[in-house]
Amino acid sequence: MAAARSTTTDWLVDGKPGRVNPRDRGLAYGDGLFETMAAVAGRVRWLEHHLDRLAEGCRRLAIPLPDRNELRREIEAVCPATGRAVVKLLVTRGVSARGYAPPDDPQATRIVGTARWPAHPASYYTQGIELRTLKLRLGESPLLAGIKHLCRLEQVLARIELNDLSAQEGLLLDTSGFIVGGTASNLFAVSGTTLYTPALKRCGVSGVMRRVVLESCGQLGLSAQEADLAPEALGEADELFLTNAVFGIWPVRELDGHSRRAGEVTLRLQQLLGFNRHA
Amino acid sequence: MAAARSTTTDWLVDGKPGRVNPRDRGLAYGDGLFETMAAVAGRVRWLEHHLDRLAEGCRRLAIPLPDRNELRREIEAVCPATGRAVVKLLVTRGVSARGYAPPDDPQATRIVGTARWPAHPASYYTQGIELRTLKLRLGESPLLAGIKHLCRLEQVLARIELNDLSAQEGLLLDTSGFIVGGTASNLFAVSGTTLYTPALKRCGVSGVMRRVVLESCGQLGLSAQEADLAPEALGEADELFLTNAVFGIWPVRELDGHSRRAGEVTLRLQQLLGFNRHA
Repeated sequence: MAAARSTTTDWLVDGKPGRVNPRDRGLAYGDGLFETMAAVAGRVRWLEHHLDRLAEGCRRLAIPLPDRNELRREIEAVCPATGRAVVKLLVTRGVSARGYAPPDDPQATRIVGTARWPAHPASYYTQGIELRTLKLRLGESPLLAGIKHLCRLEQVLARIELNDLSAQEGLLLDTSGFIVGGTASNLFAVSGTTLYTPALKRCGVSGVMRRVVLESCGQLGLSAQEADLAPEALGEADELFLTNAVFGIWPVRELDGHSRRAGEVTLRLQQLLGFNRHA
Repeated sequence: MAAARSTTTDWLVDGKPGRVNPRDRGLAYGDGLFETMAAVAGRVRWLEHHLDRLAEGCRRLAIPLPDRNELRREIEAVCPATGRAVVKLLVTRGVSARGYAPPDDPQATRIVGTARWPAHPASYYTQGIELRTLKLRLGESPLLAGIKHLCRLEQVLARIELNDLSAQEGLLLDTSGFIVGGTASNLFAVSGTTLYTPALKRCGVSGVMRRVVLESCGQLGLSAQEADLAPEALGEADELFLTNAVFGIWPVRELDGHSRRAGEVTLRLQQLLGFNRHA
């Protein structure tokens, strides 16, 4: 049964406008996953990529994956027909008795809603943003690396640290000292015709926009490599850029006080993927 | 305004029976804290210790601490007048616009409810439980260490790993290789008249029962030391025991297939703190 088209302020919980059971494991333990998607003129960009990542997260956490068509219908139901919006989808392990042990037969909860499109200055796309290395180090949990699970307190604390700095995004390292990415974005370093990006084997989120860049850079004659990146490697890179499914691609114009510039590779990737139109 | 006494199946959200806003940051990002308390005959054991830890968590995360009397009233409202129950309290950073950055003026959400008292065999108290070292290593986030925040996916995955083993509790190490504790308990190693327990500076939860043991062991002529404990140190200990605010104190009778026995220090601590009565 398709859910009725709702206003942008309504959220659907298991297909119906409503609220969440306080015993839901998503709230109790962060036991679930989410996707943050860009909706433009009634369509979610890279919807199948988002659903792929969600499916991978469910597989890794042993959460039963809801029916993909049902998710598509519920996303469609909340997605505004015009303009731009952010659509959020959460899938949790559902309600259970108290305790960390999952129930034998979990019934996933689906939660879908929208949020305001963030207004970013056009200069973030054309000239770039300032990136500042944060003191907070991300804990390493290989079993959770790459998936977009609900346990995001480290990112919240990183944003609090960033608030006191005059920069648009913060750069996070893991406890081993390697680059992970931004607080809500993935990082790419361009060297010649090669894109380097952290491998995200110990922590971090494997972004949908990151995947799009990795899959499409070949069209521009670029190759890509996922690797452990030391902070020193960034200084030597020709270009740095950040990716995120909502804002797309932003060049880095300053890293820790050192000026850089929006380079040709970054701008060509933006053009290829349509982000000059969304700036 | 005191909330009305509710049935044990009702949960109070900000003092009223109800559900949780899907935009609450506790659900969205694990941006909050919780307490799991033992209620016996209408009273929560060590309530002030639980509220102390909550206050410390709020301070560390910059979440506004709800009024302590209001929390006491809401806990009282859900607490069954007779018998034993588990009372859960969650405090989140509340509802906000999307994004990891906290709002300038967060309004904390209070969530209180009860859960069934877990039935544990008396032998867990008198003879002890089997403890097995798990493969999962806990990521290290010093800013989150010690507090009982809502991001508990590592503990959920640890419980899943434990499910396949014939042991009652799993022992977790951090990525540096030091002992943290059980999946839902703190660990003590007894050596002579000294209690050793992990310092919890990099990860782990500083349990209320752990605090009670540390504060009361002097009454038995014991001293306590918080330290980095290597796994090898456990084999040499005279006694091992686990603590948790719901079950109290359990001796460890087997660690990774090696038999141990419930020792005198552990049994005296149980007696001092009244856990022989709750077995």
